[in-house]
Amino acid sequence: MTSVDPHSGRFITFEGIDGSGKSTQARRLADDLRARGQQVVLTREPGGSAGAEEIRTLVLTGDPGRWSAMTELLLFNAARRDHLEKTIQPALAAGHTVICDRFADSTRAYQGATRGDLRGTVDQLHALMIGLEPDLTFIIDMDPATALARGLARVGAEQRFEDMGLPLQQKVRSVFCDLARDHPERCVLIDGDRDPDSVAADIASRL
Amino acid sequence: MTSVDPHSGRFITFEGIDGSGKSTQARRLADDLRARGQQVVLTREPGGSAGAEEIRTLVLTGDPGRWSAMTELLLFNAARRDHLEKTIQPALAAGHTVICDRFADSTRAYQGATRGDLRGTVDQLHALMIGLEPDLTFIIDMDPATALARGLARVGAEQRFEDMGLPLQQKVRSVFCDLARDHPERCVLIDGDRDPDSVAADIASRL
Repeated sequence: MTSVDPHSGRFITFEGIDGSGKSTQARRLADDLRARGQQVVLTREPGGSAGAEEIRTLVLTGDPGRWSAMTELLLFNAARRDHLEKTIQPALAAGHTVICDRFADSTRAYQGATRGDLRGTVDQLHALMIGLEPDLTFIIDMDPATALARGLARVGAEQRFEDMGLPLQQKVRSVFCDLARDHPERCVLIDGDRDPDSVAADIASRL
Repeated sequence: MTSVDPHSGRFITFEGIDGSGKSTQARRLADDLRARGQQVVLTREPGGSAGAEEIRTLVLTGDPGRWSAMTELLLFNAARRDHLEKTIQPALAAGHTVICDRFADSTRAYQGATRGDLRGTVDQLHALMIGLEPDLTFIIDMDPATALARGLARVGAEQRFEDMGLPLQQKVRSVFCDLARDHPERCVLIDGDRDPDSVAADIASRL
C-alpha cells in the first residue's frame, strides 16, 4: 500500500561486498556532480537520518547474536523507513540527486547469502513498507579476496559483517551479480578490480 | 511465509484501553492458574524479552514525534518478533500457558484509531512477520472517562498514549469492540466497569 511521493530528483545507490570501494566511489561521484553545479545529498545505510542512526546502533552494537534474522530484518526496515522519510524523499522532492551507500539491495544480498529462505520475505516486506527502488544502482563487483583484505584493514566496532569472512563475501557477490542480471533497467555492474580513478571514470561515463 | 511452531500450551491475551484494568486482570488470572498447578508465563507488550525491552525503550522514550507511523509500526513488530521467539514460543512449546498483557490487537486498535489508513498494512505486516494469533483474547471493555481517570493516576515516563486523551480512548474502545465482533472465535468482550473481583470471576468462568 505504501505510496511513494513522485520525485524530480535522481536516486542513485552504490552496492557491493565489503571492501569493494563503493563508499569511495559514492563520495567521488557526489564530489563530481557537485563540481558540475548539482545539488547532491550523499548518505548511507544503515543510518542516514537521526532515527535510523539510533536503530543502527541498536542492531550493530552489543551481542549481534541477540537478534534473529526476522527481528533484524524488521529493524533494518525500520531504519530504512526513517531514512527514506527524513532524508531521501525530501531531497528527491526538492529535485536534488541522492547518492546512497547501500540500500535495499544490500538487505537482499546479505539475507540472500546467509538466510536464503528469507529472500521472499525480504522482497514482500520491502514492497509493503518501503516501496521505493533506485533510479540507478552501481554494483561494484570485485574479487572477494582482495575486497576482504581491504575490509579487514578498517578499524571499527561494527565489524560484524566483515567478520563473517571470505565464504560469505563470495555468496554475497553472487547474489549482487544475480540482482544486476535480474534488474537491468536500473542496475549497472562495475568492475571494481581496478584503480579507483579508472572505476570513477567508468561510473561517470555510465551516467 | 512465517511458519509458527505448533504448540501444546495456551496463548491468552488481555486487551483494552489504558486504565481498563487489564494488567491487574492478567496478573490475577496468572495467580489463579498457578494456584491450580498450571505452569504460567505472564508477560506484556511492548517488551517481554530482553531485545524487545531495548526496542520498547527506543520507541517510548525521547521525543515520540521522531518516529512516523510506518517506522513505529516496524519497530513494534521487531519487538513483537523478538518477544515471540524468545519468550512466547518456547513457553508454548513447553506446554505452558502464556498470558500476555497486550499483543497484536493493541497495534490494530491504536493504529486503527489514530491512523485508520494503515489498518490494512498492520494486518499484512502481522501476517508476514508474526503469524501467531492468540487462542483466547479477553478484551476488557469499559467507559473511557473512568479508564482515563485511572490511567492518569499512574506515574511514569511512558505516558505518551495516556497523554492522547479521551477522544483517542473512545476511538480505541470502538476498534476493540469491532475486533471482538469480527473475531468471535477467539475474542471475549468483558465488562470492565465493575469491581475487580467481579471482573476476575467473570474471566475465570469464561475459561
